[in-house]
Amino acid sequence: MDLKKYFERRRRQIDGALDRWVAGEEEFPPRVHKAMRYSLFAGGKRLRPILTLAAAEAVGGKATQVLPFACALELIHTYSLIHDDLPAMDDDELRRGRPTSHMVFGEAVAILAGDALLTEAFRLMARPDLMKNLPSRRRLAAIHTVALSAGSQGMVGGQVMDMASEGKESKPDILEYIHTHKTGALIGAAAAVGALIGGGSRREVRALEEYGHKVGLAFQIMDDLLDVQGEETQMGKTVGKDQARGKATYPGLFGIEASRGKAKGLVQEAVACLDPFDRRANPLREIARYILQRKK
Amino acid sequence: MDLKKYFERRRRQIDGALDRWVAGEEEFPPRVHKAMRYSLFAGGKRLRPILTLAAAEAVGGKATQVLPFACALELIHTYSLIHDDLPAMDDDELRRGRPTSHMVFGEAVAILAGDALLTEAFRLMARPDLMKNLPSRRRLAAIHTVALSAGSQGMVGGQVMDMASEGKESKPDILEYIHTHKTGALIGAAAAVGALIGGGSRREVRALEEYGHKVGLAFQIMDDLLDVQGEETQMGKTVGKDQARGKATYPGLFGIEASRGKAKGLVQEAVACLDPFDRRANPLREIARYILQRKK
Repeated sequence: MDLKKYFERRRRQIDGALDRWVAGEEEFPPRVHKAMRYSLFAGGKRLRPILTLAAAEAVGGKATQVLPFACALELIHTYSLIHDDLPAMDDDELRRGRPTSHMVFGEAVAILAGDALLTEAFRLMARPDLMKNLPSRRRLAAIHTVALSAGSQGMVGGQVMDMASEGKESKPDILEYIHTHKTGALIGAAAAVGALIGGGSRREVRALEEYGHKVGLAFQIMDDLLDVQGEETQMGKTVGKDQARGKATYPGLFGIEASRGKAKGLVQEAVACLDPFDRRANPLREIARYILQRKK
Repeated sequence: MDLKKYFERRRRQIDGALDRWVAGEEEFPPRVHKAMRYSLFAGGKRLRPILTLAAAEAVGGKATQVLPFACALELIHTYSLIHDDLPAMDDDELRRGRPTSHMVFGEAVAILAGDALLTEAFRLMARPDLMKNLPSRRRLAAIHTVALSAGSQGMVGGQVMDMASEGKESKPDILEYIHTHKTGALIGAAAAVGALIGGGSRREVRALEEYGHKVGLAFQIMDDLLDVQGEETQMGKTVGKDQARGKATYPGLFGIEASRGKAKGLVQEAVACLDPFDRRANPLREIARYILQRKK
């Protein structure tokens, strides 16, 4: 399969749905809606929602059925980037080659746009006019999975530890906690929710969640490696920043070669999670392999 | 009825449930859970969750049944206070007589504790181990109502306009937008969700939501009045701050007497919304009247 074409098709589908379901810039108050859309349509890879769609496919579900959940995960991811970039957090001025939200709209609106995107994610998953044929119980279970992965014992917990460990001596178990929670949890949820809403069995949901966790950790290790090795223009953000801030990273702790080996091992394990699935899981297989090749 | 005793009993019930359902301070990472609990158990009035319980009672539902939703509304209210107090927003150092979250835990953890409380609210409403006998469809509808009232076209929208109007000439329609959205929307949702989960008819839900909107606006006008007239020790926060920051307020725009009259009228209208209800709505009637008498 042609992964590039698959990504393009899925990205268009997701961008169209986001544009349809998220309030327009003209909605009152326009400033917050402008800020929400500024970050939402900043050229993101849409990795999480694509995983949700691909996971639904893998269990024989329809991509359109899970689209609201896919979009909700992108809303949550986008809110987390806005808040992570704030001066009180990573203090980043550039994201995807553009000024970050607080540079454009000011800190107050950036915080509030993040809050609104997070809230909107849950509204989208509960919208009574969408997914009418889907059992409500299944939707509730999926909302619970997303919330658990995004909260204080998931993504937010990872970010808390990331902030707390800055400038301190890195320990492998803390570093693994940060990466599995800050990035892995939501990516795991993206795959799990696709399988759940797509009608997968309990066993299939668990397998795809595990796949997601492994892909998520591999993704984050590669991100660390790109921060050391990538070129600024390709990454669209300041490179070498982790080290400058005294952030714990895989290459910093284990070296570049061992980190690349770890990522490779994780991708192999992720692909092995897909063994019980037929060729409908091919997009998931390709996505896992792509993680190792990405340049930005 | 003895409103003070009613409040005390309900507050105990809500505090017990919050303590049970929100992760303990020892949960990893402890810093964020400490921050979440620091603000959650800071002696709040619990107005929103009490309204949820009272609204459920009014339609003949059980208070225990709606407790998770009541708690979720308090989690959302608490997150909004933490974020509103941030240096980039209202820059408040005191809240309920104690240092605000960012003063104690730093800005980064305060932002993240707010994010986590908001996320936890939605998790609580979707928890599969709670409210098992409740129709899932009704729970989804309630989650949607809460999200709508808390998001960019509800509470967050109100806060955005509040920040934007600072130091500018106040206009009555903007001021009303701020108050109805920043405070009224979530209080309206608190009552509506109590009625909805409590098993009320569509008409009852609408009536109680309207009641909540009126009570919410009256509450905010009285808050403005207390900011002008209250004593610092009673309020537990800096008094006269609205004026110092050039915030639009009812007394600032209409004068003290007219503002008090407006609040009184709203409370009468709120009580009139309860005309179709029997004596089980008495707590709601008393709560509305209490708004005019509160001293803090």
